[in-house]
Amino acid sequence: MATMNAQQIADLAQAALERAGTRGPAAASLARAVAAAEMDGIRSHGLIYVPIYCEHVQCGKVDGKAISEVGYSNTSSISVNAHDGFAHPAIDAGFEELIPRTRENGTAAISVKNSYNCGVLGYHVEKLAQHGLVGLGFTNAPASIAPVGGARKVIGTNPFALAAPDGEGGAVFVLDQSASVVAKSEITLHAREGRSIPEGWAYDSDGNPTTDPDAALKGTMAPAGGYKGFGTGLMVELFAAVLAGATLGKDASPFAGTAGGPPRTGQFFIALDPASFSGDGFGARMTDLAAAITNQPGARLPGQRRMENRQRHTANGVTVDDALIARIEAI
Amino acid sequence: MATMNAQQIADLAQAALERAGTRGPAAASLARAVAAAEMDGIRSHGLIYVPIYCEHVQCGKVDGKAISEVGYSNTSSISVNAHDGFAHPAIDAGFEELIPRTRENGTAAISVKNSYNCGVLGYHVEKLAQHGLVGLGFTNAPASIAPVGGARKVIGTNPFALAAPDGEGGAVFVLDQSASVVAKSEITLHAREGRSIPEGWAYDSDGNPTTDPDAALKGTMAPAGGYKGFGTGLMVELFAAVLAGATLGKDASPFAGTAGGPPRTGQFFIALDPASFSGDGFGARMTDLAAAITNQPGARLPGQRRMENRQRHTANGVTVDDALIARIEAI
Repeated sequence: MATMNAQQIADLAQAALERAGTRGPAAASLARAVAAAEMDGIRSHGLIYVPIYCEHVQCGKVDGKAISEVGYSNTSSISVNAHDGFAHPAIDAGFEELIPRTRENGTAAISVKNSYNCGVLGYHVEKLAQHGLVGLGFTNAPASIAPVGGARKVIGTNPFALAAPDGEGGAVFVLDQSASVVAKSEITLHAREGRSIPEGWAYDSDGNPTTDPDAALKGTMAPAGGYKGFGTGLMVELFAAVLAGATLGKDASPFAGTAGGPPRTGQFFIALDPASFSGDGFGARMTDLAAAITNQPGARLPGQRRMENRQRHTANGVTVDDALIARIEAI
Repeated sequence: MATMNAQQIADLAQAALERAGTRGPAAASLARAVAAAEMDGIRSHGLIYVPIYCEHVQCGKVDGKAISEVGYSNTSSISVNAHDGFAHPAIDAGFEELIPRTRENGTAAISVKNSYNCGVLGYHVEKLAQHGLVGLGFTNAPASIAPVGGARKVIGTNPFALAAPDGEGGAVFVLDQSASVVAKSEITLHAREGRSIPEGWAYDSDGNPTTDPDAALKGTMAPAGGYKGFGTGLMVELFAAVLAGATLGKDASPFAGTAGGPPRTGQFFIALDPASFSGDGFGARMTDLAAAITNQPGARLPGQRRMENRQRHTANGVTVDDALIARIEAI
């Protein structure tokens, strides 16, 4: 086991991504997100994902050399074409315009198309909060959820994320939640271990509830809260695919594996300047609302656990498996 | 029983609202929404609500004479102060600015503070879709939901609504969903009839699940999908209260009854021009996504039932109880 800090994690990831054929600035953007995921304790999007990112560059699911193109369609609307490259540098490029335009105009939005899995969605909106803005983000994914009453999948687990600024370079909370009851990886894990899944997680390919993980993997994921979860996922699809001009989840190639070429999914972010709407009253009301949650033993603000992990890992470093480091260094 | 068309319903409502002390334009705005609710088969927000609206003007929960003030804080941000008046005329006044500004700048948003129950939230965002825009709306309400792990209510049933334009003066779908598993009125109904409520609807005042409707009314409403429902409601609270400068749900006076003075809750709407983000590709992708849902027997687009009611009621009129008409005419 090795103990690494954020910079060391980012350096390890960046070097591998570049060796796999990613241009430097894109590799750096993605590597920062990998390090942030490790610091926040979200290992699924940390170093363990680097070999997959590299494989996706090598197989052509991602164009490592792509340069994202930022279009200025209007005063408060920015359209980014990721050109089959990684989502992270495309989002970064869009945010460079989004942040000053939001400050100038009160509200602005960016769409990202021909994109890819953007990793932890909350990571991106938190950046907006760090710049003093409210950030609302959407990202679509290959379809896995059927509409209530139907059996064929139409939308992905489609998360949305929301960050509220604390006015001191950070976020009061970062909400980041998908439209499904559980992540698909939970079902894959149960299938691999030969365990049945709890009722309410998934449906088989005929749309019937199932506790068989293999039937679930051939069927669809249950939306959280029934039709309300589907509604939330549909909102995400409207923004990240329909409005962004990206591929609908039902037509996108999988994020996992090497088949199918670029998924060309999308992202959408709306940023708002609190000062434009509520003058200087935002901070006090935000503090009041947050306290009503944190004052209750057992209740937490969204993202609180990630923030605690970050503090601990900043102080003590992150423990990383030697075999994983060796695997990344061998790329 | 009488059969009425939309204009007759609106006229009946407007006259009563004016007699109760509402100024003409505000009464007209609210009366149009009452008629629309009847046409869509949402009787809870139709004529049956008119005596309550009138009572709220008479007891001072709403200032019927208020003139909403539209502030232009920035190019793409509009702040409306409803000044304790009805929400509907305040939203209408804001939309008069929001629609042209969105067309001009791609994205724009309005906040509404010192407001009141805005009725059917989907009604408002559908107007944006009728103008060819994507409309996303939020409205907060007196607190009834506790954070997961806590027992004290922090946010209201806080709905959000989303409408997608069909490019022909209508909406492809209108999503309108609250953060709770069921409406509080469902629990009130069970209490009145002495029936227990299903598990999963509500918690008692100690935060334990309950099937006793009286304990539920003293406790909190269950969020749809557990912590994800709370997250969605928190998003609504951030926009409609914190960002809008309105009263937090936990501090707002009730919408029901005559006590407590003006609730001073808020609304928030974001509008986006599809042409600014995805050129002329929006319509085809939207049609494709909608068909993937409507092609499945048993599945429906959000708001489809309301739209069917509207078509039927436009053709045949709405049946209204004579006693209700008499009650409204007696105001």
